[in-house]
Order: sequence, then structure tokens, then C-alpha cells
Amino acid sequence: MNNEEFRRWGHRLIDWIADYRDHVEQYPVMSQVKPGEIRSMLPEKPPMQGEPFDAILRDVDRIIMPGIMHWQSPNFFGFFPSNNSGPSILGELLSTGLGVQGMLWATSPACTELETHVLDWLVELLGLPPAFHSSSTGGGVIQDSASSAALCAILAARERSTGGRSNSLGADGSLTAYISTQTHSSIEKGVRIAGLGADQLRQIEVDANYAMRPDRLAEAIALDRAAGLRPCFVCATVGTTSSTAIDPIREIGRICRKENAWFHVDGAMAGTATICPEFHPLHDGVELAESYCFNPHKWMFTNFDCDCFFVADRAHLIRTLSILPEYLRNRATESGAVIDYRDWQVPLGRRFRALKLWFVLRSFGIEGLRQRVRQHIQYARELADWVKADPRFEMAAPVTLALVCFRHRGGDAVNQKILDQLNASGKLYLSHTRLDDKFTLRFSIGQTETQRHHVAQAWRQIQDAADAEMS
Amino acid sequence: MNNEEFRRWGHRLIDWIADYRDHVEQYPVMSQVKPGEIRSMLPEKPPMQGEPFDAILRDVDRIIMPGIMHWQSPNFFGFFPSNNSGPSILGELLSTGLGVQGMLWATSPACTELETHVLDWLVELLGLPPAFHSSSTGGGVIQDSASSAALCAILAARERSTGGRSNSLGADGSLTAYISTQTHSSIEKGVRIAGLGADQLRQIEVDANYAMRPDRLAEAIALDRAAGLRPCFVCATVGTTSSTAIDPIREIGRICRKENAWFHVDGAMAGTATICPEFHPLHDGVELAESYCFNPHKWMFTNFDCDCFFVADRAHLIRTLSILPEYLRNRATESGAVIDYRDWQVPLGRRFRALKLWFVLRSFGIEGLRQRVRQHIQYARELADWVKADPRFEMAAPVTLALVCFRHRGGDAVNQKILDQLNASGKLYLSHTRLDDKFTLRFSIGQTETQRHHVAQAWRQIQDAADAEMS
Repeated sequence: MNNEEFRRWGHRLIDWIADYRDHVEQYPVMSQVKPGEIRSMLPEKPPMQGEPFDAILRDVDRIIMPGIMHWQSPNFFGFFPSNNSGPSILGELLSTGLGVQGMLWATSPACTELETHVLDWLVELLGLPPAFHSSSTGGGVIQDSASSAALCAILAARERSTGGRSNSLGADGSLTAYISTQTHSSIEKGVRIAGLGADQLRQIEVDANYAMRPDRLAEAIALDRAAGLRPCFVCATVGTTSSTAIDPIREIGRICRKENAWFHVDGAMAGTATICPEFHPLHDGVELAESYCFNPHKWMFTNFDCDCFFVADRAHLIRTLSILPEYLRNRATESGAVIDYRDWQVPLGRRFRALKLWFVLRSFGIEGLRQRVRQHIQYARELADWVKADPRFEMAAPVTLALVCFRHRGGDAVNQKILDQLNASGKLYLSHTRLDDKFTLRFSIGQTETQRHHVAQAWRQIQDAADAEMS
Repeated sequence: MNNEEFRRWGHRLIDWIADYRDHVEQYPVMSQVKPGEIRSMLPEKPPMQGEPFDAILRDVDRIIMPGIMHWQSPNFFGFFPSNNSGPSILGELLSTGLGVQGMLWATSPACTELETHVLDWLVELLGLPPAFHSSSTGGGVIQDSASSAALCAILAARERSTGGRSNSLGADGSLTAYISTQTHSSIEKGVRIAGLGADQLRQIEVDANYAMRPDRLAEAIALDRAAGLRPCFVCATVGTTSSTAIDPIREIGRICRKENAWFHVDGAMAGTATICPEFHPLHDGVELAESYCFNPHKWMFTNFDCDCFFVADRAHLIRTLSILPEYLRNRATESGAVIDYRDWQVPLGRRFRALKLWFVLRSFGIEGLRQRVRQHIQYARELADWVKADPRFEMAAPVTLALVCFRHRGGDAVNQKILDQLNASGKLYLSHTRLDDKFTLRFSIGQTETQRHHVAQAWRQIQDAADAEMS
């Protein structure tokens, strides 16, 4: 493909994507294929000679599209959203076209400096503490996911708790970590990866609203101290995955300060809400945290991957993750005047992800972002009212932001059937969780193009499914 | 930005990228900015109201471009390449436009099945053992980088060596790992992250060609066994970063089998050469490896990130990295009939990266890929001949593929000056390493558009710099 062909097919593909975005509601949200169906359409061997691009695009339509779940449909209400937007797609496209590798400041200064700058913007915008600003002791970095951010936090915690010896001597089985029963599974994964061991992870009880109980946390830490163990890491969540529960950050933070445990706050989904000043109270107490993350790739119209990870003291992180072989030495690094983000993450290489975030912030403007987030939250509140008004259903958790957890009163099997029927219809997509040990429907609002009428229509379909179930 | 605006600006951005690719040689390869220069041009706060897209594009030209290192210039000879191509850019664009999150088979079956299929293609193409094929006990997965692939291998090794207990009980300080003095720094980083501890990592001596000495490896393992330690993980490299040295895979593999240590082979750069049958011998003995990776995002015209990671027994990997919370349960996963790639990697979320690899393989065709790779290798051999013919210079290592390591005979300071002068000229970019404890210039060929005349011109510039240095 020469550059003139690239230009022609690039235009064609932009049109393909624009058409897709225009017509995304016509596709069944959940793919209807069976395991192996996509592969059965692919040839056994790759072609020896190059193929024309239109043949590839035809196969995208014929083979790939039937196997797509349409996360960008306004009728996608599953999991948490993984939304994108025009400016984000274009920012990612520019990043791909430039093709820089931003492992060091020196390997593209703009890649590092734009990232630092945009993450500094977000510190103020989200009401985060000044220590997370790069002009202070800390700073922000883009990770691929909240999982990776949490892993970095756990590793830095491990290093800090052992006085910098765990990197060299390894984990020693004495460190303990604390989450709630509602914390995302990625934290357990991180604790395992870091070699602390899942047996060293305490799952703290939650209250009636599924928020961590600080009293139980204090008890668990005291028990471990009495047993000669070293409490090292605590993760609190602003907006849990199952129900968007808000852990009491300030109280947990106070315990962590007293116990000298690294305090990580995971705001993967809910963090975006705090671009609206009225939601800054969600972050109350976050100045007690050593680290914090949220995902613009969930609810801030920025395509995956884009997790923003902030630390209050970058020295811990860098000490934990830095290795400087000769082939990466350079004058800028040795001057100490620059950030080399390879030392802030697990992989060495990195894409220019700040571009898409910059494009989104500038193209929407802060007020444009706030408006959509407020709308999503408003739709969730209306949906909750509709659920409460239907005697067949019950709410399963408070609606703190844009997630509505509810269930049919008929029990687990009925709810599973309703879910399966709705998703098989292709008209919308929901996912589920268990709360209070009961099968619970999760209706998560946050897709970029979701409007009130999509939510209203989905609710009618849920009611119809309940009717069908009972008839 | 509504969808019509997306269409219009998308066309404009495609043209911008095509123009950039047409004129990339006009930019200084290395950015000439000073630390802080890019940030100083960015406003202190993000805009409250959305800005027109042409204002953003103007700022790309004005603010971002001066801070770019042009990795896609045919005069980029630094590090290893991070090349891209038209089909790759378009594959990434489609992935971004679809915006699917492929954490589970169920969250977009095509994302998982295309990935498995294309990685199966590569098993045969690269002459890798059948165990790495998904129809056998193993299979392949796309990771962001060779760093992350190595971390997964180290974690699976840790689990296997402890009979599955390290995930729950943590690392215990008894496990040892082995690399050579030339192994990439990411392996030490992975050993640290996994909690084994850098003190448990042995750097094995290399031979005159910078390849690991198997006799020294066997001795180190014997010493550790005698000390009651448990050899757990060995990494060999096909094409080291400093000099593209080839470790003796078969001999090292035999030792690993005997000692029951996990054998990981890192072919990050050199793996791509094995798409040419005449380079299959580079993989001789790789059937003794538990895991293997190579990076299409280096030399196979596929933009970062795209590392292909293969394991011979996927059960170890999945056991190590799987956690299944309720909110991710689904019928397809429970049927056991599908792959959920979230269990093959550290993060939970994942992009549809197989698209770009599929686009590249189909658009170039296997012969198209082979032709470019063979050209790059041919240019490296010619350059080596020119170096050898110039009495001012000496070769620093054998040319095994497309990297030429050489130095001016004037000593470290002269070589550093030549490097600085060349890079400051903006006409080309080289990086360096140390071999035999001497400052060594690395001339790495592999950028997609590099032709013979670029290499010849660069060599003239190197000679001119040597002249200037001596005058």
C-alpha cells in the first residue's frame, strides 16, 4: 500500500466508521455468534501475495462484524462503558500515524510533556490534592488500565514497606493488604503478581450500602500487627464495580496514615463524575492517599486504553520501577530535568496516548464533558424512579451516579432469564452482579450517545421481558 | 463534534498523516527542543467551551511537531525500530472506531477469535513448535510489549515452581532466575515485580559473540541447587538489544528441561526475521521453551503496541492470572469452549489489536513482508562492509541480522562526540550501547521505508563526522 493508496483507503475507512457510528443502533448489541463461528470463516493460511484493501474491508463486514459486541451503541448498558468519541478516535489516529515510542523524554519530548501537562489539568479539574501535581512531589501518568495502575501502587507500597529491600531481596511473606468484599478483582490480581500472596489479602466487610467499614479495617490491621505481620497496602474504591458504592475515603485514609500503609484510591468509573464541581465531595479525604486512578476510557469519551494514575510522591514509584541499561542512557535523562515515563509503568514502550485525551478535553470543553455526565446521572435517577414504581422490581443498591442495580422479585432464575432474553434480543445489553447474595441486574449508563429515549425504551423492554416471564 | 464533522475532520487528518508520511524526511529526526519547551506553549487550564478542530490541528503543527522524534523517518536508525505502515494505521483506526473491549470472548467474539487465528498463522510462519498452536496445549496472545510478556512468563514460572502456591502464599525467597549479561532490562524488572528479588537473578557470562554460555548457566544452577535454592526461570534471547547476539537456544533449553526450569525465549526484534524460511535456524531448539515472544511492533510494520506471546501449556498461564468475579461470569466462559484473554495478561481490559496484524499480513502478503526484511538485512551487510573498509572504524560485534555495531577507533569520547554531532544534525538518528566496555555506535535498520540510499547517505554522514572530529 503506497501512500496514495493509504490516503484513498484512509478516506474510505473514515467513511466506514462514520457510517457505522450513524447506524450502530441497527446492529444487535450483543453478538449472536457461537464459539468457533468467526474462526471457521478465516482461511487456514495467510496469503503469500498482498491482497487489495477492498477485499480486506469486505471481510471486515462479512467476518468480523457479526462477532462484534457494540460497545459504542447507545443501547449498551453492560459492565461499565468503554466509550469513545470523534475527537478521541482522531487523537488515537494521529498517535498511530506519528508512531512515536515515548519510553523516554528524549524519544519524543512532546509525548512526555503533553501527558504531564494534561494530567496536571486533571488534578485541578477533579479536585485532587496538589501533591498529585507534577510541580509538587508527585505527578500523573497514563497507564493502560486501572489494573496496571493498581499493580504499580502495590509494588511501590511493597518497596516502601520494606525500606526498598523487596526489589532486591524479594517478597518475604510478612506484608498484608486490605480491600473490601466489593473491591475490583484486579487488586487481588495485583497482590498475587507482586508476590505478596492472596492469603495476605484481607477482604473487609461492607455496610448496608456496600461501602467498606473502617472499623472492620482497623480491627483487621490490629489483628495482623498482633500476629507480627506488616500492613502495607489498602485500596478504597470511589464507585465499586458491582454497585458504585463509595468507600469512606477520609476515615480509611486516617487509618492508613496512622498505620503507615500505602493508601490507593480506585476511582476507575466514578472519577469522571468529579469533573463536575458538585461531585468533588466524592474525593473528600483523597489528600490522604498515596495514589489514585480513574479511567477516561470508561466515562470520559476517550477510547481504551487511557487510565490516569496519580501519585503523591513520585520518588517511590520511580525507585520501584527504574532500571537504566546503557542503551537507554541519554543526556536529558542524566540532566535530571525530565520525566522518563518508562520508570512509572511496567512496560518499557509506550504510545502517545495523551493526544486523544487532549483532543477530547479541547473538543468537548469542560462544560461539554460536564453536560453529558450530568445527563447520564439524571437518566439513572429517572430509571431508578421507574424501577421503584414497578412493584415487580426492587432496587438492589442506592444510585450514587449512573449505575442502577435492581432485580425482579421473582428470584435468581427469573432474573437470569430476563437478562438472557433481553441480551438475546440484540436490542440492548445489560450485565449482572450479585448483591446480598442475590442475582442483580446492572444497568450502567455512560455510553457517549445514550439519550433519555434509549433508557426509556430499554426500561419498556425490561418490563416486557418481565411480563413474558410471568405469563 | 457531530458525526458529519467527524467525517470531515477524519478526511483532513488522513490527509495530514499522508502528507506527513510523504514529507517525513524533511523533519529533523531527533527533536531539537529543550526540557520544558513544549509545556511552555500549552495553556495553564483546559478550555471551558469546546474548540474547533482546526484550532487543535494547528496546535499539533505548532506545539507538538517540534517535540516529536520521527521514528517513522527512513533515517531513523536508533534503538530498534518501532515501525508502522499504511495497513497497520488503518487496522488500528478500525479498532479504535469499533471501540470494543475484548476482555472476554463474550464481549466481542471476533476480537478473541481473530487474535487466536492470526497467532496460529504465525506459529507456522515463524517455524515455532506445534505446542504453541491453540489446537494443542498452548496458544498465543497479543501483549502490549515484550516486558509484559516476560512478566507473564516469570509469574507462570513462579507458580509452576511452587506447585501453584505462590499466588496464595506469596514469593518465599527460594526461587532463582537466570539471564545473560546481555539480556534486556525488562527481565530484571519482571523478576523484581514478581517478588523474586533482583538478588535471586543470575547474570550469566557471554562468549566472544555476546551469546550466553550454557556451561556457565549449568554451573550457576548447580551452585544454587547446592545452596538449597530452586532454579525457576531462564530467559534466552534471539537477538539481544545491544548487538543482536543469538543465545544457543537448544543447549540452554536442554539444561532447563533437565532442571525443570521455565524456559522463556525473547525474540522481540529478531523473531520477525524468521518469517523468511532461511532464518528458521534462529529458532532451533525453541521447542524446548515454555514460552516465546516477538514484537511485530518492532520490525513487522505493525504499530506499537503488538507483542505476540506464545506458551506451550496455556493451563499454567491461566491458573496464574485468572480471577473470575461474579460481574464477569457468562455462559460462554462457563461452557469452557472459549478463550478469555483477560486470563492471559496482567490488565483486564484489552483493545482489538489483532485487526492491525491481520491487515498487515493480508495487505503486504507473506512475500511482501519477507522482501522488506531481506532488504534490511542486505543493507546491514553492505554497511558492515563499508565500516570494515574504513580504517578509522572497527566492528564491535558480528552482524547477525539488521543491526550494525561499530565504533571509531579514537575511543569513547570521540564516539560520543560523533553520535551527538550526527543526532544534532537532524539528518539521521543513531543510538549507542557499550560492548566490551567500550562506547559503541548502534546502527539499527528496520524502518518500513528505509532504502539502500538512506543507509549509504547515513554512512557518508558518519564518515564526515569522523573527518570533522579528526580535523
